[in-house]
Amino acid sequence: MSTTPNKEFPLIGWRRTFHEVIYEADTMAGKVFDVGLIVCILLSVLAVILESMVSLGKTHRDLLVFIEWAFTLLFTAEYILRLFCVARPSRYVFSFFGIVDLMAILPTYLSMLFPGTQVLIVIRIMRLLRIFRVFKLARHISASSILLQALRASRIKIMVFLYTVLMLVMVIGSIMYVVEKGNSGFTSIPTSIYWAIVTLTTVGYGDVVPQTLLGQFIAAIVMVMGYGIIAVPTGIVTAEMAFTSRSEISTQACPVCSKEGHDKDAMCCKYCGGAL
Amino acid sequence: MSTTPNKEFPLIGWRRTFHEVIYEADTMAGKVFDVGLIVCILLSVLAVILESMVSLGKTHRDLLVFIEWAFTLLFTAEYILRLFCVARPSRYVFSFFGIVDLMAILPTYLSMLFPGTQVLIVIRIMRLLRIFRVFKLARHISASSILLQALRASRIKIMVFLYTVLMLVMVIGSIMYVVEKGNSGFTSIPTSIYWAIVTLTTVGYGDVVPQTLLGQFIAAIVMVMGYGIIAVPTGIVTAEMAFTSRSEISTQACPVCSKEGHDKDAMCCKYCGGAL
Amino acid sequence: MSTTPNKEFPLIGWRRTFHEVIYEADTMAGKVFDVGLIVCILLSVLAVILESMVSLGKTHRDLLVFIEWAFTLLFTAEYILRLFCVARPSRYVFSFFGIVDLMAILPTYLSMLFPGTQVLIVIRIMRLLRIFRVFKLARHISASSILLQALRASRIKIMVFLYTVLMLVMVIGSIMYVVEKGNSGFTSIPTSIYWAIVTLTTVGYGDVVPQTLLGQFIAAIVMVMGYGIIAVPTGIVTAEMAFTSRSEISTQACPVCSKEGHDKDAMCCKYCGGAL
Amino acid sequence: MSTTPNKEFPLIGWRRTFHEVIYEADTMAGKVFDVGLIVCILLSVLAVILESMVSLGKTHRDLLVFIEWAFTLLFTAEYILRLFCVARPSRYVFSFFGIVDLMAILPTYLSMLFPGTQVLIVIRIMRLLRIFRVFKLARHISASSILLQALRASRIKIMVFLYTVLMLVMVIGSIMYVVEKGNSGFTSIPTSIYWAIVTLTTVGYGDVVPQTLLGQFIAAIVMVMGYGIIAVPTGIVTAEMAFTSRSEISTQACPVCSKEGHDKDAMCCKYCGGAL
Repeated sequence: MSTTPNKEFPLIGWRRTFHEVIYEADTMAGKVFDVGLIVCILLSVLAVILESMVSLGKTHRDLLVFIEWAFTLLFTAEYILRLFCVARPSRYVFSFFGIVDLMAILPTYLSMLFPGTQVLIVIRIMRLLRIFRVFKLARHISASSILLQALRASRIKIMVFLYTVLMLVMVIGSIMYVVEKGNSGFTSIPTSIYWAIVTLTTVGYGDVVPQTLLGQFIAAIVMVMGYGIIAVPTGIVTAEMAFTSRSEISTQACPVCSKEGHDKDAMCCKYCGGAL
Repeated sequence: MSTTPNKEFPLIGWRRTFHEVIYEADTMAGKVFDVGLIVCILLSVLAVILESMVSLGKTHRDLLVFIEWAFTLLFTAEYILRLFCVARPSRYVFSFFGIVDLMAILPTYLSMLFPGTQVLIVIRIMRLLRIFRVFKLARHISASSILLQALRASRIKIMVFLYTVLMLVMVIGSIMYVVEKGNSGFTSIPTSIYWAIVTLTTVGYGDVVPQTLLGQFIAAIVMVMGYGIIAVPTGIVTAEMAFTSRSEISTQACPVCSKEGHDKDAMCCKYCGGAL
Repeated sequence: MSTTPNKEFPLIGWRRTFHEVIYEADTMAGKVFDVGLIVCILLSVLAVILESMVSLGKTHRDLLVFIEWAFTLLFTAEYILRLFCVARPSRYVFSFFGIVDLMAILPTYLSMLFPGTQVLIVIRIMRLLRIFRVFKLARHISASSILLQALRASRIKIMVFLYTVLMLVMVIGSIMYVVEKGNSGFTSIPTSIYWAIVTLTTVGYGDVVPQTLLGQFIAAIVMVMGYGIIAVPTGIVTAEMAFTSRSEISTQACPVCSKEGHDKDAMCCKYCGGAL
Repeated sequence: MSTTPNKEFPLIGWRRTFHEVIYEADTMAGKVFDVGLIVCILLSVLAVILESMVSLGKTHRDLLVFIEWAFTLLFTAEYILRLFCVARPSRYVFSFFGIVDLMAILPTYLSMLFPGTQVLIVIRIMRLLRIFRVFKLARHISASSILLQALRASRIKIMVFLYTVLMLVMVIGSIMYVVEKGNSGFTSIPTSIYWAIVTLTTVGYGDVVPQTLLGQFIAAIVMVMGYGIIAVPTGIVTAEMAFTSRSEISTQACPVCSKEGHDKDAMCCKYCGGAL
């Protein structure tokens, strides 16, 4: 995530100064810039949320639209500045934060073409992920990487599970469409599949509800299945997480063959037998 | 799942050629056949879903019925061909995929006798399970077999659990029927049992809801019970899954120091350095 | 659960014969009696459920009332017979099955005093627990005892957890009563506590719903709390269950000191050091 | 939690006597005081709950208000007494129980200024936490400390998780506001975020429900996400809890063969039989 282009293509003069302020958080100026940015993001998100609330008067609404445009122009200027004072702009543009930064300013401009889309600038909230970098919350990032690692390790199991659930809700939805046809709610197969998902995930809105005895019987079976199925992702993630935290792998590399991944209690390299 | 009848009863001539195309996915022709089949299945399922949506005009509806019949005849021809170019047809008919293939064509024919049942051809989606075989997704099958193994290993515990839940909802449903009798919703014991299942599984539609203070009190107890009971299947599956993934440790002992517990990829003992 | 009073106080003559038929399932007659009993229980429960369904005509209803009385008299006769052919009747009366047997016949008699209570004879379904004994489903009982053991071992943790949840919903319910007072649903503190339980357990009927923005904000916090809190009982039971199945304790007793509970990999008694 | 100020600043005379009665539960008088206090707390909470129920007549309501004031004055006297007979009052005032005790009497006085706030005295129920101290339920406190320890150990992971969920519901809520704008329910971004939380946590009230096909499709994805996300906190807490309960293995090594991993109750090494 750290961008250190000055090692590859030395920036000089004001571009170097700006780079340190905008991209790094080590200097005083860099910290002030980052905190100011976070405050601006929070304020602009708040403005969008307030604007959506209907009870506002015309004057307040105009003020909020003005604020929204002000922040968008500010963020646009910042985006252009970021492009200027980085050695390889294309790397920034296609990085995670580069995409988020662009998506945070686009909706306002798009709203001139498609009215209503400006609420999407709430995506700006994702820019707040920088907060972890600013406050050097290394421990948080480590914790989140354990979570991601557990999810990635069980990626295939989760995909198989999701595919099974998808097939299940399609079959259940179709059966319920035949059983409850004519009753309110079950108007088409997609709606019936929607009902199956609402039921299987134990959300249970109650907007589509079986009314025949047979429908209620099938629904009861689906619920108990959902009750059991919820155990599967939990089991996958928990087992993976318990495994990740259990193995407590040492960061030490073998002095002989340089391989890593030894257990903490290992006394010899498990690949070449050299003493650790 | 792999059918290799040519070892038992050698197929010759065109039957052998067709067998390789239809049942195997190793040759180019076999791959093309399988991918084409998957596309056909997806299109036919899409047609059924579109047909169920009420806003369609007469012309579109007729077109969809035609598509449905076209695919059904195509799949019927494929089914007959499969029967012809396999050494032991009975083994195919009663295999998992044989049953699914038959169930995927029956509903259309049944709809001539019982109108409305053609939506059941959505079962065709299950034919897509072949996708795992086509793309040689061995890892996916391995992952899914771990899931199935964990479920099978805890089969008896799950049955005892389900029997307990069944008795619980019958007793709770009857008590609520006595308490809430006369209020809307609790019209019979089956409906009250349905309410108990909806509540215990934390689905909570809200179509049947207690209205007396005593009923709400009992409902609150049922909810907290359901909250606790949900832990049981999760606990069963997780413990089983943790056990399954834990056992990936090699059973090999070090020939020098006789210690065990080495990782499967270890080449040297991690305690004394001796070669394994 | 096995009652063998003949060792303490020998039964003779017909009482001994009847004891073997009614209490044991080893002889042919005993098996026939038990299976017949299970069929009778199922039929009588079915009769109660059918009776509760409103769409029945007068004739059918009278028939069901007659069936209910017939089964009740039959079970009463069986209960009296059980009392007669057991050496210590008081031990049977206060055993688990003795209480269930009595509760299975009482509601019909009570319904003469309090009309409507006869639906409680659905409690009869609990008599079906005998099914485990009849079919010698030892493995099922073993599985269910592991479940019970895990629950018992985490008894104190679960109590502390339930007490915390109880206090939480009382405080949340009171706060919501102040916030949402006047809105439909939040009519009293008990109803608000009921809402808090419905929300915290993620049941979410939707019969009582916050309508102010502040109420929705508090509700959102409660939901996320409930989302996290659900992890606690699951964690308790899973950890306990993993521990129970992990320890895989050997059934071997030490030949020197006779103590049990050694690990399967133990080579010497962990209490006295004698070789196992 | 135990306050023993007499070691630091000796109390003499009646203050010492009162201290032992009020703060300790070892003497007979102390036990009687604590049990009486618990009964008073329960009665006063019951009075508040009864008062909130609308069906009461004027006479009963006046009685309940009188009871409420009586208990508040009693608890105020007790609070002042506690201040007098403790060596360092400031330490009590800012302790956990000191704050709870103060919050338990304030609402009644505040209700003279802000009518309606007296229902907050239900906070009094938290005073019942003393029950653990009175009955010396050390095991309960130990169990609850294991729970707290598991929660504290996974504090950072839970924070990262909550932050991710917060960002997710804000983005989902905004998208649904654009998609479902105009339909009942999705009136503003905060309400849409409220809907996203209700759906993601699988509560599913059904007061705000998507009505367009696109909205239902997005809702279905959110539900399946919520279904998977619920696995994360469960996984975190369970892995932590399994780790906590697993570590009950003694750290003692065998003095003969130096092997570790012995149970805490083991008296001899389970590998070589040497005394531990």
